[in-house]
Amino acid sequence: MSVYAAHDVLELVGIYVFATSGALMAIRKGFDVVGILILAEVTALGGGVLRDLIIGDIPPAAFTKTSYLLLPMLAAAVTFFAHPVVERLNTTMLVFDAAGLGMFCVTGTLKALDYGLGSFQAVVLGVTTAVGGGLLRDITARETPTLVQVDTDLYSIPAAAGATLVAAASHTDLPLPAVAVGAAIFVFLFRVVAMMRHWTAPRAWERHRRTG
Amino acid sequence: MSVYAAHDVLELVGIYVFATSGALMAIRKGFDVVGILILAEVTALGGGVLRDLIIGDIPPAAFTKTSYLLLPMLAAAVTFFAHPVVERLNTTMLVFDAAGLGMFCVTGTLKALDYGLGSFQAVVLGVTTAVGGGLLRDITARETPTLVQVDTDLYSIPAAAGATLVAAASHTDLPLPAVAVGAAIFVFLFRVVAMMRHWTAPRAWERHRRTG
Amino acid sequence: MSVYAAHDVLELVGIYVFATSGALMAIRKGFDVVGILILAEVTALGGGVLRDLIIGDIPPAAFTKTSYLLLPMLAAAVTFFAHPVVERLNTTMLVFDAAGLGMFCVTGTLKALDYGLGSFQAVVLGVTTAVGGGLLRDITARETPTLVQVDTDLYSIPAAAGATLVAAASHTDLPLPAVAVGAAIFVFLFRVVAMMRHWTAPRAWERHRRTG
Repeated sequence: MSVYAAHDVLELVGIYVFATSGALMAIRKGFDVVGILILAEVTALGGGVLRDLIIGDIPPAAFTKTSYLLLPMLAAAVTFFAHPVVERLNTTMLVFDAAGLGMFCVTGTLKALDYGLGSFQAVVLGVTTAVGGGLLRDITARETPTLVQVDTDLYSIPAAAGATLVAAASHTDLPLPAVAVGAAIFVFLFRVVAMMRHWTAPRAWERHRRTG
Repeated sequence: MSVYAAHDVLELVGIYVFATSGALMAIRKGFDVVGILILAEVTALGGGVLRDLIIGDIPPAAFTKTSYLLLPMLAAAVTFFAHPVVERLNTTMLVFDAAGLGMFCVTGTLKALDYGLGSFQAVVLGVTTAVGGGLLRDITARETPTLVQVDTDLYSIPAAAGATLVAAASHTDLPLPAVAVGAAIFVFLFRVVAMMRHWTAPRAWERHRRTG
Repeated sequence: MSVYAAHDVLELVGIYVFATSGALMAIRKGFDVVGILILAEVTALGGGVLRDLIIGDIPPAAFTKTSYLLLPMLAAAVTFFAHPVVERLNTTMLVFDAAGLGMFCVTGTLKALDYGLGSFQAVVLGVTTAVGGGLLRDITARETPTLVQVDTDLYSIPAAAGATLVAAASHTDLPLPAVAVGAAIFVFLFRVVAMMRHWTAPRAWERHRRTG
């Protein structure tokens, strides 16, 4: 399978898994089927839409390929009927989610570079692609964003590390497709290990010391 | 009165009623006059601004015709002074709101088609136009979005049905203005009947069965 | 120092102070370092990004000059380590924040006029530039927006007054740079006096009278 075919498959897997996490949150919050659908779409596509509005790819990719809008619908429908099963697959879902995280932060960074943004800006937009949907999901569902909670395993920091690798490599002679694959795998492993070891990001320094 | 004149009048009515629903929520939440104004503007124009940013009509229509920004101000001012009266008009407001819902989902779909988006995308953006402002209102006011609550009468589903009618008709020889009027009336009636009969959307299947 | 050099310095000060207010809120809410960083960036740049997406300056200014993204990182880092000191500087921070408010509402209005928007639209976008970041900060942190609370000192109203001055002057022969400086100083003083005298905006009329 070529890098590009693998990319296409992984992207669809990532969208599906992100959408499922949105649908599951909607179900946990007792939302109706409309809420399940909205949270699935927002979680799966929100980060990419933010990125595309900012870099100027308008209409955003999410609105140009029908599979992007349809896949979260499918994920919402499956979760709607099979959510007890889906919730039991929690660990599996988290592993796929880590793959999605790796994918989206790398492709988001590459797309921003393609559109002529600076390296640093591309890193920020790569991370936005990967974590923006989850942030919008939490805001819509009135949850404190998972992203900012102290007791959650590292999520955005692996994404930032991977995005930085890609942006840095774009200034070298290294073959970017290979770097991209490597960075995505690195993010995936970093996130998986962070979950296994429960690595968390620190609170503010002083407060941490007092309460530690 | 021509279809176009009727459209213009209905659009202003829709904006006014949506703005009033934002202003009333701000008053119920005890917000100050700035909050009343912000929620009025966000509710009335938020859905259309989201649509325009995505399809690339920039600046969004809300920022090109002064009446679009002024009308929510007027609604906020009237509600500010007369809100006990306005709240007693609740049923009247809900009927006008249903008219706005029909209007905005149809015009949103047509505009997205005009800008070259696919039929499915146009349906999503039509619904976004109609319900996006209310969603942003709820998020800003820290309310669980009405849109996703199980005990609320159908709102987005009539909009989705109407938007689908319009998008489907755009592939046929049917005269689009007539279809648009018909679809808007259909959405209006669907929503009004949903309120009268308290039709609601289901929760996730398993949970619904257990608690049912 | 020329008006333009003063503008550049003041803008950086404004971004820094806005970012600090985001970082402090994240620390008060017990968020981790990622949350501190996100709230710093969102608060400092969110208003300008909204404005730029609407007027069509894409990519938004925040993504074209590296200092715009870096400065909130610096503010987040300083606040992370020194937040007890930073919180003791509360009054100082509020004064700088008032300077930022004056700056951003004036430059936001001027930029919207430059992009060909109408005077009224430019006023709305000037206020959006100045207060949008704080609104997004509060929404992300799940706080009731400071902007809409009845017991908070006037904030958006001085900004609206200053933006109106600038937009009105753009229709006259008055030298716009001088007017801009004057308007920014006016907003600054208006806000400072509002804080000293605890000027607040009214609730809805009837409710205010009953509970007053």
